[in-house]
Amino acid sequence: MSAEDVVGAPRQVAVVGLGLIGGSLARLLAVRGVDVVATDVSPATRAAARRAGLSVADDVAACVAQADLVVLATPLRAMPGVAAEVATHAPASATVTDVGSVKGPVRDEVRAAGLADRYVGAHPMAGTEHSGFDASDAGLLDGVRWAVTIQADVDPARLVRVLALVTGPCSGAAVVLTDDVHDEAAALVSHVPHVVATQLLNTVVGAPVRDVALGLAAGSFRDGTRVAFTDPERTEAMVTQNAAWVAPALRKVVRDLELVIEALESNGSTHAFFRAADDLRAAGRPPAPVGAGSVRVERVPLVTGWPTSLVERCTAGAVVVGLTPTHAEVVAEGAR
Amino acid sequence: MSAEDVVGAPRQVAVVGLGLIGGSLARLLAVRGVDVVATDVSPATRAAARRAGLSVADDVAACVAQADLVVLATPLRAMPGVAAEVATHAPASATVTDVGSVKGPVRDEVRAAGLADRYVGAHPMAGTEHSGFDASDAGLLDGVRWAVTIQADVDPARLVRVLALVTGPCSGAAVVLTDDVHDEAAALVSHVPHVVATQLLNTVVGAPVRDVALGLAAGSFRDGTRVAFTDPERTEAMVTQNAAWVAPALRKVVRDLELVIEALESNGSTHAFFRAADDLRAAGRPPAPVGAGSVRVERVPLVTGWPTSLVERCTAGAVVVGLTPTHAEVVAEGAR
Repeated sequence: MSAEDVVGAPRQVAVVGLGLIGGSLARLLAVRGVDVVATDVSPATRAAARRAGLSVADDVAACVAQADLVVLATPLRAMPGVAAEVATHAPASATVTDVGSVKGPVRDEVRAAGLADRYVGAHPMAGTEHSGFDASDAGLLDGVRWAVTIQADVDPARLVRVLALVTGPCSGAAVVLTDDVHDEAAALVSHVPHVVATQLLNTVVGAPVRDVALGLAAGSFRDGTRVAFTDPERTEAMVTQNAAWVAPALRKVVRDLELVIEALESNGSTHAFFRAADDLRAAGRPPAPVGAGSVRVERVPLVTGWPTSLVERCTAGAVVVGLTPTHAEVVAEGAR
Repeated sequence: MSAEDVVGAPRQVAVVGLGLIGGSLARLLAVRGVDVVATDVSPATRAAARRAGLSVADDVAACVAQADLVVLATPLRAMPGVAAEVATHAPASATVTDVGSVKGPVRDEVRAAGLADRYVGAHPMAGTEHSGFDASDAGLLDGVRWAVTIQADVDPARLVRVLALVTGPCSGAAVVLTDDVHDEAAALVSHVPHVVATQLLNTVVGAPVRDVALGLAAGSFRDGTRVAFTDPERTEAMVTQNAAWVAPALRKVVRDLELVIEALESNGSTHAFFRAADDLRAAGRPPAPVGAGSVRVERVPLVTGWPTSLVERCTAGAVVVGLTPTHAEVVAEGAR
């Protein structure tokens, strides 16, 4: 699908930061015929991106000057400086989005730079165990699910622009949420699992029976610790950025585990613990993201209040799979 | 390798219980030309085993009457009755072993039946998400690593018999351990990971953002909860049977997580937590079991005290990969 076919599609996209995600997005947009200009703070990365055939600007100012959609793809710690440059050099009409795995803290940075009115948050649900432009690939973000986060007073035209990017040239689907719901959900299905995987590994490392334990390790340990073998610095950054939601979720984990321990120590029942998720077991493991080919497409009219309506539907499990001039196409996933 | 080539190999093996593991062991031994007689409490399972070409006895008494190695492959709850029957009907010279995932409680049952002197514990490190004879397969236990557990006063000839089974017709490798070291290690690399996987799933099930969270779930959640989607009844049985080691290991998990929570809540450092296992990360994920083809084979002479010597080496990470009339062949895995 070319960019022109999509309602509200951006004319020119600026991608600021060419790591794994920024690089993959720039490559995908280029493949799909979108006018994309990218930049990175590293001259070596800019050179590599030019060799890969991308259109590369030497600095943020040149990168964003003509853009109507700016994608911030830098680490959170670089966000204040980059956001300030975007505020200075991007057209006021340009919508600003990002690709970070935590949304509330990014909005705080963007707001501090005076970009609050132009910002719609975004988080593509994809990644690999590698990082950097060398690991980027046009296929990584092709057809994946994105979380898109807004506030109630979002400019609907800016939401359209980001949804158009996701469902158009990226061939993806979007779950429209508040920052808080996104960040709580991400804590549960990503950040807490990363902490727990790290803890499983730490428990063995510190044990007197460490060597025997590693020698006996089979599937449950290998799966349970897989993400603990990825870059711990990146994991720590992700977890600490979402501390506000990770900490209470971990408190719940600790409370539940204490009940299990007490039952094990007193020969009490652990039945409720092991059966609490039986309905999910019956439904099977979480499905792969639905695509536009899914059945039961519902058309949500783009009338006053439609962003809030999308948030309500998506918070209950629906996914935006397409846009028309007058409607958002929504797929309901059904109760799981 | 035929059974006759192996030092101390059993002439006839009785397999009592034809679930996933018992069935797979009986099939593998039959394929390898071992004289194996099997039985199961279920007539339907016995019929299925006969259709699969196995030699099947109608009851425990007939199954074990001529055996010189009896493998108890029943659930722990059936162990008291089965062990009593074995004590009555098996020759006194027959060695008794098992395939359970927890060793101390099995030894307690076997001791109660008067079989303590004849028992050597065993636990093959293999399994699938399925169970029952229908899921059994000769390949499941072919070439896998076994934990073999003994007490200091073990009859060396009985240990030889079990090691011969593992390293001979099963083409496997054995880690010789005390029950306690096995059960502690199994708690760390299997039972605690199962509890934690269950908790990750339970945390999402009970959350208000459940549907969004499942919709956003990617690799870390899918891997981290994989074993929570297996039969929860079997998981609960495994965990509660090893409560003595699982409970303190979970206490350590809870203590460590509380430190992480406190750091997250106070903007403190989580660096030590995320870097505690860096040496393991540098070494890479746990390797697949070594086989007999591995280099650096050391020959441990079968002289007075050799079982204890094997326990010491295996507790430090070594693996028994073969037997000769005078030596055990041991592979050192090196520090990890």
